[in-house]
Amino acid sequence: MGIINLNSSFIAYGNAVGEKEHEGPLSDRFDMHDKTDRFGQKTWEEAEGEMLRLSLNIALNKCGLTFEDIDALFAGDLLNQCTSSAYGFLGCNIPYFGIYGACSTSAEGIMLASVMTTNNVYNICAAATSSHNCAAERQYRTPIEYGGQRSPTAQWTVTGAGSFIIGGSGEGKVKIALGMPGRVIDGGVRDASNMGAAMAPAVADTCVRFFRESNTNPADYDLVLTGDLGHEGGKIFRELMKMDGYCVDGVYNDCGMIIFDKNTQDTHAGGSGCGCAASVLSAYILPEMEKGRLKNILFVASGAMMSPDSLKQGRSIPAIGHLLNFKV
Amino acid sequence: MGIINLNSSFIAYGNAVGEKEHEGPLSDRFDMHDKTDRFGQKTWEEAEGEMLRLSLNIALNKCGLTFEDIDALFAGDLLNQCTSSAYGFLGCNIPYFGIYGACSTSAEGIMLASVMTTNNVYNICAAATSSHNCAAERQYRTPIEYGGQRSPTAQWTVTGAGSFIIGGSGEGKVKIALGMPGRVIDGGVRDASNMGAAMAPAVADTCVRFFRESNTNPADYDLVLTGDLGHEGGKIFRELMKMDGYCVDGVYNDCGMIIFDKNTQDTHAGGSGCGCAASVLSAYILPEMEKGRLKNILFVASGAMMSPDSLKQGRSIPAIGHLLNFKV
Repeated sequence: MGIINLNSSFIAYGNAVGEKEHEGPLSDRFDMHDKTDRFGQKTWEEAEGEMLRLSLNIALNKCGLTFEDIDALFAGDLLNQCTSSAYGFLGCNIPYFGIYGACSTSAEGIMLASVMTTNNVYNICAAATSSHNCAAERQYRTPIEYGGQRSPTAQWTVTGAGSFIIGGSGEGKVKIALGMPGRVIDGGVRDASNMGAAMAPAVADTCVRFFRESNTNPADYDLVLTGDLGHEGGKIFRELMKMDGYCVDGVYNDCGMIIFDKNTQDTHAGGSGCGCAASVLSAYILPEMEKGRLKNILFVASGAMMSPDSLKQGRSIPAIGHLLNFKV
Repeated sequence: MGIINLNSSFIAYGNAVGEKEHEGPLSDRFDMHDKTDRFGQKTWEEAEGEMLRLSLNIALNKCGLTFEDIDALFAGDLLNQCTSSAYGFLGCNIPYFGIYGACSTSAEGIMLASVMTTNNVYNICAAATSSHNCAAERQYRTPIEYGGQRSPTAQWTVTGAGSFIIGGSGEGKVKIALGMPGRVIDGGVRDASNMGAAMAPAVADTCVRFFRESNTNPADYDLVLTGDLGHEGGKIFRELMKMDGYCVDGVYNDCGMIIFDKNTQDTHAGGSGCGCAASVLSAYILPEMEKGRLKNILFVASGAMMSPDSLKQGRSIPAIGHLLNFKV
């Protein structure tokens, strides 16, 4: 039995993104963007940490809270040793749980923060995550100055950060009702330019387990939103779900497909990175829920758990998908 | 208020270590060791994942449980993108929360697993972590074949893994009573060969906050055991505690000082790495508690949260210390 009963809500949320993200369909829905992608910092890595800290500040400002009001923070990112989070939140003095779930980090953090507030371990917790295209390109692939050719199935790492302030169910309009942690699944994909294909089986695994255990099906939800499978992974996910008897067509969308315009932004299979799901959720999906346009959704953030070293050593790409059920 | 009331216990625990660790003072107290440090694998990174999986298997065998009995696993390690954990537990099909706390990971995992069982979110959870000297040297410093000279303040990354099966307070003899997550603290240290000095302020911060909030002092405990400050960091920690009015002399020890013989093993300032605290705790400290030789202890695992890149970019080393109180 993997479903966790949660009884918490979003008190507030904030985000900050780069220029390309602001040029995309969500444009001014983002709380903040920096045209230079640098956020006043010397390095891309420091820019990511600063963007992450800003997203938490923005969320806190929206609800009139300060760092001192946050009992614990769950944070993680894509950089080696999760340094955006560790350096980004230096000086905030918030009790800190470092997490690593690659692009699934937003859902993992929200789930753990909700476990804390649901069970009155703490009153108010926060979850935060980020990714930065230039920092990720440097670490995972090659510096962008190198100008390497991208494959059609490749996704574009989002420059973005999202932070979520989570409290009891009475505190915010959008409720966090259920959670289900994913399992690490290896579908055998070895193509580092096709993360969507690598992640789809893990997301399908969690969704199928959730539908079975909750005795619901996709039609019971306004939206089944995956983290960032992108156009390629999204297709594979829909096929895998059909093979298990669940058709998500009509209610399905993906943060990686939403954040960029496929036709004009040259982002190939869509967006990815911890900051993709976090910024789309906080800038677009949760506000739509607050307006009553979406009432009952599943959010399944996915992460690819390989490293550049594990790929060089010939291993395939393990992945995970963490699921949350939000309601208004 | 940072202290978390926990009401759980260790059902079982297991560990696996390398040859150098087995040659140290704890010798045959470890459940398993491999003379070659390779655990049958081709690469050091795969060896670490295999050692980690073995430690969980050993723990499960001790209590007659299987992977299916574990409701959720909290796991993390030092490798980029925490790949030892993701690959090591592939195929176990346990719902998985990836965590990153550098060498503090053991305490972070035990704390989160305990939150889950204390609040009946899940019945049985596990926490697991590892480090491998050769994988760490390759990633953080230089391949060992390079034969770089080590500084006297440098610690030796332990080849070791530890896994803990955690359930309700009635299930195991050693109880997990209290927890306190650390805060990310930067003491300004930039010397990558002196992690002890970098981590001591973060550990002292958590300990002082804990003593103040719990209205206890070091003399109330049989042992105040830090994660792996080593000989150098341990000295600084004791000084910092005195400056805050708490003298830990007489009850203080450190996993990094315990695991190697300072005089004969050429490990300079002692052991370090996620696997250091996890293997010393599971091979030595918890068994001593089961025998009644230790009754009420504080375990404070510490982590240095920098990366090789952040050091190259001139940043100092942030650190964290997570605290747990164990009782029999």
